[in-house]
Amino acid sequence: MVFSPLLGRLVEALRCLPGVGPKSAQRMALHLLQRDRAGARRLAEALRSAVEQVRHCRVCRILSDTEVCPVCANPARDRSQLCILEAPADVLAVEQTASYRGLYFVLGGHLSPLDGIGPEDLGVDALAARLDSGEVREVILATGTTVEGEATAHFLGELVRRLGIRVTRIAHGVPLGGGLEYVDGGTLAHAVASRTEM
Amino acid sequence: MVFSPLLGRLVEALRCLPGVGPKSAQRMALHLLQRDRAGARRLAEALRSAVEQVRHCRVCRILSDTEVCPVCANPARDRSQLCILEAPADVLAVEQTASYRGLYFVLGGHLSPLDGIGPEDLGVDALAARLDSGEVREVILATGTTVEGEATAHFLGELVRRLGIRVTRIAHGVPLGGGLEYVDGGTLAHAVASRTEM
Repeated sequence: MVFSPLLGRLVEALRCLPGVGPKSAQRMALHLLQRDRAGARRLAEALRSAVEQVRHCRVCRILSDTEVCPVCANPARDRSQLCILEAPADVLAVEQTASYRGLYFVLGGHLSPLDGIGPEDLGVDALAARLDSGEVREVILATGTTVEGEATAHFLGELVRRLGIRVTRIAHGVPLGGGLEYVDGGTLAHAVASRTEM
Repeated sequence: MVFSPLLGRLVEALRCLPGVGPKSAQRMALHLLQRDRAGARRLAEALRSAVEQVRHCRVCRILSDTEVCPVCANPARDRSQLCILEAPADVLAVEQTASYRGLYFVLGGHLSPLDGIGPEDLGVDALAARLDSGEVREVILATGTTVEGEATAHFLGELVRRLGIRVTRIAHGVPLGGGLEYVDGGTLAHAVASRTEM
């Protein structure tokens, strides 16, 4: 950036955002400097305080401003249900449905022996300790439907069952509101095999 | 964002970036906090210093870290050619071709009477003063090919011609490397009408 090294540095820094290439980064930098310096200042401040203060909840491992997140600390949540998910984004997705009133546990990934990710990396020790406390009566496995997600669900299912706790898996099948013709074959085959009485 | 108000604030702040909606902003915020806190810190710092220090070059009005930008201050550039463009992004595009060695002048927009944008908003006074100094022997009009861009080029062309300075317009026509079938009708009609001897 021959005109402004600082603009060049900003373009480079914006590329740490996922899905932002050199062209988008340049467009973003020019937009901020020409039309929205107040927004740029707010963004800088929001980044700084989030990086410094957001950590993982000690209980459920989701991102939280406090040591124990507001959901884990909320006495109105149903402590007998524990939903296990791979990522914080999954928790946000479930939470946005406003249909679940239990607690969460975030693995932060899935079992992947090839990448060297084993149970210890997913906080399974902390999970087992939590289940041992006897408060949880149902574990809902909501890991992804990838091969690794299924393997992780299988591994955790065995572990939870050995502790004598009820374990369930979220339903897989045809999404609501979509025609069958748009559903991939694997999902459709699963939906037929897993049909329920009505 | 029930888990972390700071995360919510970061998601909100990221939406000041062009083309970033709520879903992308959430994905970006989670990515930064989970995988790239160093990148987030760098971005915050780059935003802060760019917002504080990048201003418009006093001579050509492009974004610059210094009062006069490095291009205007460069004695190796050809001071007899002046290329007039609408936006700093246009200058960067021309500069990246490395085919132009003259100077620039950025209008910061185009004439648009309906939006109340007149010559005074585009720095035409400063431009006229610069042309009066007698250094410039050719003005290259590189405003956009929109109706407003053409009107702006026409207006500036008249002004420059009255000062007795040569004025040219960048060529419009079929882009290099593309088949004619992919070119829109307006461009093709213009390309035929503006054909040159070979």
